[in-house]
Amino acid sequence: MKQVLVDMDGVLADVYAQFIRLEKEKTGTILSPESLIGKKEAHAFPHYETHVTSSGFFRTAPIIPGSVKGLEYLNNKYDVLIVSSATEFPDSLKEKLDWLNEHYPFISWQQMIFCGKKDSIKGDIMIDDHPKNLDAFPGRRIIFTQPHNAQVENPSYERVSTWEEICTIL
Amino acid sequence: MKQVLVDMDGVLADVYAQFIRLEKEKTGTILSPESLIGKKEAHAFPHYETHVTSSGFFRTAPIIPGSVKGLEYLNNKYDVLIVSSATEFPDSLKEKLDWLNEHYPFISWQQMIFCGKKDSIKGDIMIDDHPKNLDAFPGRRIIFTQPHNAQVENPSYERVSTWEEICTIL
Repeated sequence: MKQVLVDMDGVLADVYAQFIRLEKEKTGTILSPESLIGKKEAHAFPHYETHVTSSGFFRTAPIIPGSVKGLEYLNNKYDVLIVSSATEFPDSLKEKLDWLNEHYPFISWQQMIFCGKKDSIKGDIMIDDHPKNLDAFPGRRIIFTQPHNAQVENPSYERVSTWEEICTIL
Repeated sequence: MKQVLVDMDGVLADVYAQFIRLEKEKTGTILSPESLIGKKEAHAFPHYETHVTSSGFFRTAPIIPGSVKGLEYLNNKYDVLIVSSATEFPDSLKEKLDWLNEHYPFISWQQMIFCGKKDSIKGDIMIDDHPKNLDAFPGRRIIFTQPHNAQVENPSYERVSTWEEICTIL
């Protein structure tokens, strides 16, 4: 059975919606998704650091639409591992685990990996929004569209923008 | 540069000393290391579950003697990744990260992996006290002696009992 590495932020967790909500709360400004295109998250959101290090940021993030049904489909067909960059933000670890348990209860603790970088995780297929993770991965690379990667073109990627598309190609 | 996967519990963290201390606090009984030989930790310690799920268990564990100097030596010579089974116990995640930062400040967050099982982590050399982790590893297998594995004989393992021995063979 093939092993699929599934990213959290930007693939399961709608961190852009979370950032936009928090920026609005903090400054009153509503950032349009279009204004964020091509910018790294740390540059796109003026208070990025404040948000990601604030209690509850990861725990209360909304899910990407379709991801529950989509991930359950993958989980029945492949060996699924959730692989998330998390050790940079120590408080995110438990928040991410609790969040996974709440929204995707069919994913067991044995299927979770929280790391600093992903280039030492084995798999056949990677679904991620960050080119740096995909570029270091020797298997099949699926890029999930987010504003920061929308302009990236790489013939080694398969691009998807929804979980329905993931389920169509996998 | 070769990549070395270093386990935490039983290799860096002296969890046996921690279990023995907590059993004594709880019951007054001092368990001798000899009485623990050949038993899995969950069977060797009557209140295993209580201990590992209690706040501070991993955060306050003593270090294995020689591990600071030894790990620093490895870190200067190899690509070191700390790979720890942690997602079974959600509260252990941050405790383990804080513990690593306190005792081994030369290890960065990029070098930490907290997972459920270790069979998807790439490396050339694994140092672990659990045969189940070593058996799934295709590289060089170094078993760190702890009471539960003291009677295990496997010609594919190199056995060490101290960090000084690790530094001699690596």
